[in-house]
Amino acid sequence: MVQKALGGAGLRGQSAGETRICTVGKSGTGLTYRGYDIKDLAEGAEFEEVAHLLLKGHLPSTSELANYRARLRSLRALPTALLEVLERIPADAHPMDVLRTGCSMLGDLEPEAGFEHEHEVADRLLAAFPGILLYWYQFSHEGIRISLESDEACIGGHFLALLHQRAPSELARRVMHVSLILYAEHEFNASTFAARVCASTLSDMYSCVTAAIGTLRGPLHGGANEAAMALIETWQDETQARRELLAKLAAKEKIMGFGHAVYRTADPRNLIIKEWSAKLAQAAGDDRLYRVSCEAERVMWEQKELFPNADFFHASAYHYLGIPTPLFTPIFVCARVTGWCAHIMEQRENNRIIRPSADYVGPAPRPFVSLSQR
Amino acid sequence: MVQKALGGAGLRGQSAGETRICTVGKSGTGLTYRGYDIKDLAEGAEFEEVAHLLLKGHLPSTSELANYRARLRSLRALPTALLEVLERIPADAHPMDVLRTGCSMLGDLEPEAGFEHEHEVADRLLAAFPGILLYWYQFSHEGIRISLESDEACIGGHFLALLHQRAPSELARRVMHVSLILYAEHEFNASTFAARVCASTLSDMYSCVTAAIGTLRGPLHGGANEAAMALIETWQDETQARRELLAKLAAKEKIMGFGHAVYRTADPRNLIIKEWSAKLAQAAGDDRLYRVSCEAERVMWEQKELFPNADFFHASAYHYLGIPTPLFTPIFVCARVTGWCAHIMEQRENNRIIRPSADYVGPAPRPFVSLSQR
Repeated sequence: MVQKALGGAGLRGQSAGETRICTVGKSGTGLTYRGYDIKDLAEGAEFEEVAHLLLKGHLPSTSELANYRARLRSLRALPTALLEVLERIPADAHPMDVLRTGCSMLGDLEPEAGFEHEHEVADRLLAAFPGILLYWYQFSHEGIRISLESDEACIGGHFLALLHQRAPSELARRVMHVSLILYAEHEFNASTFAARVCASTLSDMYSCVTAAIGTLRGPLHGGANEAAMALIETWQDETQARRELLAKLAAKEKIMGFGHAVYRTADPRNLIIKEWSAKLAQAAGDDRLYRVSCEAERVMWEQKELFPNADFFHASAYHYLGIPTPLFTPIFVCARVTGWCAHIMEQRENNRIIRPSADYVGPAPRPFVSLSQR
Repeated sequence: MVQKALGGAGLRGQSAGETRICTVGKSGTGLTYRGYDIKDLAEGAEFEEVAHLLLKGHLPSTSELANYRARLRSLRALPTALLEVLERIPADAHPMDVLRTGCSMLGDLEPEAGFEHEHEVADRLLAAFPGILLYWYQFSHEGIRISLESDEACIGGHFLALLHQRAPSELARRVMHVSLILYAEHEFNASTFAARVCASTLSDMYSCVTAAIGTLRGPLHGGANEAAMALIETWQDETQARRELLAKLAAKEKIMGFGHAVYRTADPRNLIIKEWSAKLAQAAGDDRLYRVSCEAERVMWEQKELFPNADFFHASAYHYLGIPTPLFTPIFVCARVTGWCAHIMEQRENNRIIRPSADYVGPAPRPFVSLSQR
């Protein structure tokens, strides 16, 4: 017998399984990775420690971390056939489509030979995504074939080094650690759930991550920080920000970067990235984007009691880091691949194929009419 | 508040939304597409009529069908950049990975410019998949660059013409129509559900179909007809079939191609493809594979009260059509892309992001320990 959907459309509030990886809106400031509060992780850890926590289940010791960093660093180079594929993707392609194709092609070239290799594939993808994105970006936009090696020990710094072709500042490195930590994992969000549905047929990890990238690509999921940037970049000061935001609200336009499907009063990730955006503004000697963002926060709370989510202050932070707006969502991929792979492995441990039912509301049974009679 | 999963793991028996496209196990022989019984469609229609039914909502008139066939035929050529990508995928790649990458790359080259173009993208994918698969297959296995044109008006015949580089028989054409019709649609199966999860973030159609291909790739979903072939091809006669199958059952091995998550007494698709397998055996003058398949059906019913599903007699049918076993699941893609795209369009019509919750069973909140203290 088919049970009617409980939480309305979209399975909202309906459990789709068990997890040991993450809680959202339950304890501490509202987000925990394997029991650790996101605030503590963002303050005290580097991204590779959190990746290790999510993928291997525990925070690494000093020697484990050194080995893990070295291992990820050794996995940055890409096969020639993949580089040749990336060179055939046009400059105006959606960068998320580039990652989707790059991930899929890597799976053609280096398939997961069995689930006993799942950690190797997860590490490979984590190490490879900055190179996949930025090789294509630099080739298609600048006409150059960049090296995928850099002097940066960590993924965030490596990303910036490939993008700017110079070493990032210490502050920029730290902000990338924080940003990647904040975006690394978020329970059964749509892209992670898509990865688990794919994993539930016992498909390979590349298929699951490719599905997740395509799902994150949607504007209701991954694109909010890009939309936030489009909103704030035109504002010269707080007065303009307030005036134009009020006009948008009056016209009932949806403002991206505010509110959340699960959090009700605040997004714990916002408090953290907002602080770093302030520090970046100060270091840049130009706090316009930070100030108009704060004004938007005030207006949205006064008018709608909506709070900024993880995405809103990421827009100004990424801008201060010199990251082009179309690359915002791909950074999300570079972080979230850790959560996706952790969930894929968890799904495999105790698997049953995810195959829900549907409420049929279509035509009643009807007789077939052959072509000559139509 | 999070509601516990009702149907146990895998959302079994739990509604995840409404559909007007298909019923499984409800009326007629147990499978209807937009109200028409699968038996009537497989007997009286060609695949392009069913594709039109699923994608446009009604069976086409004679002129609509002629236009639709001509349109699909005009969409068979592939862009050079995609052909160059396919040439870089090794011969030992999984053919489903080839389709996944080919679909994703086509999305890089011909993106869906807006949902108003969704029918164009669906038609393009439907027309392109045989060419994507067989261009790669012939290039990597035979070292030839085939033309993607053929004299065949329909997709099934075109598939066989590209594969064998000659015109198929009338019987072979008809069996391909039947097979593609049987595989075209099946409600909220895992790959279709993955496509809908992806669509629910308002992502593009290529992302959704790429996710579905990766999900269908898993051995619990799309690979059963290939597994059935591996089982039956070694049997020389009924005696051997019975003996070895009983031994496998005694060893508690899972036999692929039998039973179903929803159907309880028979799979309506089996009765149909079994008849066509018998006709192909007769035409081939070699009924060994058909006879051992029938013996397996008897043994499985006597021993386990399990019936063949759509996949089991597809193995012998495809073999009689001269199709290599690794290409069985890709044919499933060529058919199911119609159902996937119909569901993606339906999801978009009345969308809410699919974001379930999870039951947390992981570590309780714990204090962070900094690296130097670990």
